[in-house]
Amino acid sequence: MEITLKRNNEHVHFTGTNSDGNSVQIDGSAQIGGEEKGMRPMELLLTSVAACSAFDVVSILKKQRQSLEDVLVKAKADRASEGDVKPFTAIHLTFEIIGEVHQEKAKRAVQLAVEKYCSVGASLNPDIPVTHETVFPVR
Amino acid sequence: MEITLKRNNEHVHFTGTNSDGNSVQIDGSAQIGGEEKGMRPMELLLTSVAACSAFDVVSILKKQRQSLEDVLVKAKADRASEGDVKPFTAIHLTFEIIGEVHQEKAKRAVQLAVEKYCSVGASLNPDIPVTHETVFPVR
Repeated sequence: MEITLKRNNEHVHFTGTNSDGNSVQIDGSAQIGGEEKGMRPMELLLTSVAACSAFDVVSILKKQRQSLEDVLVKAKADRASEGDVKPFTAIHLTFEIIGEVHQEKAKRAVQLAVEKYCSVGASLNPDIPVTHETVFPVR
Repeated sequence: MEITLKRNNEHVHFTGTNSDGNSVQIDGSAQIGGEEKGMRPMELLLTSVAACSAFDVVSILKKQRQSLEDVLVKAKADRASEGDVKPFTAIHLTFEIIGEVHQEKAKRAVQLAVEKYCSVGASLNPDIPVTHETVFPVR
């Protein structure tokens, strides 16, 4: 797997591109010249954790022939507050499941996705707890 | 820090959005219905590692009053080939440094960025080696 990162201004607005030509915009905090032209790197990391888990939830529920209408994920993370480097100290994922889905199956799918199958999660420092909850909003 | 992930189709095309409204597109492999509408989650993770390091390289060289004209990063990663979960097993970052930059200072900036300051790198499993090289292409 390979990605390329190019700079767009004299500060830290970068474009990341994969081998298919898909791209993402990344920018930094105002302190280092950021102009809110893209996600921050740590937000991108959090998004990758959430997306990886969401993919697995969709796949698992599809195999179980559950009528998943929609899934929305909210991801929150805490970071170290001291020191030169501020890694995540905790991640929490909330899955909103919409559709004619068996609630216990959905909860189990989320658990498997987050705790077992997500390759992004498996690439994180195991000291960072990744917790999750599954809710079933009525639309 | 918080991001939200919304699904765009019945497969795994998602949009991730941060609190400033910046967004990224994420999609999966063809096997799970992906249509190349965005980066894969593991590509997003790799991009976050590269961007975080690139930000720090820019900041360090700016503090040292080096005339960095441009910086380009190529990031490659290997993944586990067996098992249900396929985390990264190695990451390699190549920094292309353009401008009137002292080469030893640039190399040192890359080393500090990758090995010490990058918060994304510090959130990764320490078992994943992150190597780097710095090159100075003539334009």
